[in-house]
Amino acid sequence: MSGVRALAFDVFGTVVDWRGTIIREGAALSREWGVEVDWAAFADAWRGLYQPAMERVRTGGRGWVKLDVLHRENLDELLPRFGLDGLDETQRDHLNRVWHRLDPWPDAVQGITRLKRAFVVAPLSNGNVALIVDMAKRAGLPWDLVLGAEVARAYKPMPEAYLNAADLLDLEPGQVMMVATHNSDLEAASAAGLRTAYVHRPDEFGAGSKADEWAWDGVDVEARDFLELADRLGA
Amino acid sequence: MSGVRALAFDVFGTVVDWRGTIIREGAALSREWGVEVDWAAFADAWRGLYQPAMERVRTGGRGWVKLDVLHRENLDELLPRFGLDGLDETQRDHLNRVWHRLDPWPDAVQGITRLKRAFVVAPLSNGNVALIVDMAKRAGLPWDLVLGAEVARAYKPMPEAYLNAADLLDLEPGQVMMVATHNSDLEAASAAGLRTAYVHRPDEFGAGSKADEWAWDGVDVEARDFLELADRLGA
Repeated sequence: MSGVRALAFDVFGTVVDWRGTIIREGAALSREWGVEVDWAAFADAWRGLYQPAMERVRTGGRGWVKLDVLHRENLDELLPRFGLDGLDETQRDHLNRVWHRLDPWPDAVQGITRLKRAFVVAPLSNGNVALIVDMAKRAGLPWDLVLGAEVARAYKPMPEAYLNAADLLDLEPGQVMMVATHNSDLEAASAAGLRTAYVHRPDEFGAGSKADEWAWDGVDVEARDFLELADRLGA
Repeated sequence: MSGVRALAFDVFGTVVDWRGTIIREGAALSREWGVEVDWAAFADAWRGLYQPAMERVRTGGRGWVKLDVLHRENLDELLPRFGLDGLDETQRDHLNRVWHRLDPWPDAVQGITRLKRAFVVAPLSNGNVALIVDMAKRAGLPWDLVLGAEVARAYKPMPEAYLNAADLLDLEPGQVMMVATHNSDLEAASAAGLRTAYVHRPDEFGAGSKADEWAWDGVDVEARDFLELADRLGA
């Protein structure tokens, strides 16, 4: 790993707990708005529309669109299914921006802070820049810069998303390590020439939902969390 | 100023002392390499080639080129004039990267740290991303993200350089304030719809060289340094 100079982090699921945050915020909104909603099912359904929406952009079926816009379209589609079609514009916008307010996993801030001493640390997310910046300022995530889909104008797992990161940092792809809890992300990063680190997030889809999940065989490093990743990388 | 959400900083001259750093590093290199050079004249000559080199890119005379490459071309042109044509590739590369190692003005880190509590803070420089990231990590400049010419693929003062920053932050241009010690930068930012803050850097071209310089009439805020800017913006 001696040639690695920068760590590029997947964000949703790897750095932050999107599902837990939506459930917690949803419960508070249920009380405020006086509505009953299965927020776990809501979070899963919303996330379920994520890949198909990006796929239309990836395949050229529509031009570049920020993830905030895709999230909002998916939200508007979802609300009637959960009896929430009465939400007004302000409420919809507030709910859509829950993605800007996602809570990090407990080890994330401390782990990234340690890793930042030895490496350039940057998110490489499909989230748009404003979303990632709002999240980082709220949670205290100490990124050196923001990389990712909007800067590259290409959603992962398109190779351009990974290669743009190396280009902006003036590094060879092999000097950048992708950190993610999703094997598909790591396999695409590896195919583009990046190094890879798998981090276990057993609770991403609910407590213990991924407890039995294994890292892809071709991964360079595997760690329980960002603190163990810092240990393994000597940071 | 109540609508301002983000501060975009010019870097060379505004955040860091490019001339002083080149003179200090040059003096050390003179001792190491056993050469006599007027490093103040060298710094001024190198900086003098900066705008013409970018102008060819701005006007479409050549495609997009990172500032590191322009700096290197200008350096190679300059070395014979200062009796330094004997420098080898390693020495040239090291000298060219002095732009990655520029020292901040004494108030810069503390001032940006204060401003970061109330605003998104980002460099909006003609320096390429790797240069800005290296500089920030060395000096401890706590940027939220890196904006600027390479991300926009447009060198200031082209309007695209400023408008790209607002677009990536999902803000209106009037919610972004350009901070600079150069009136030309502020006038171009203002023409693109941004707010503007002039910061005095009287020593940019040597002690007291800009002591009598006034801010452009149309500036929104004027401050002696980043600490006074933080005071004025209530940060």
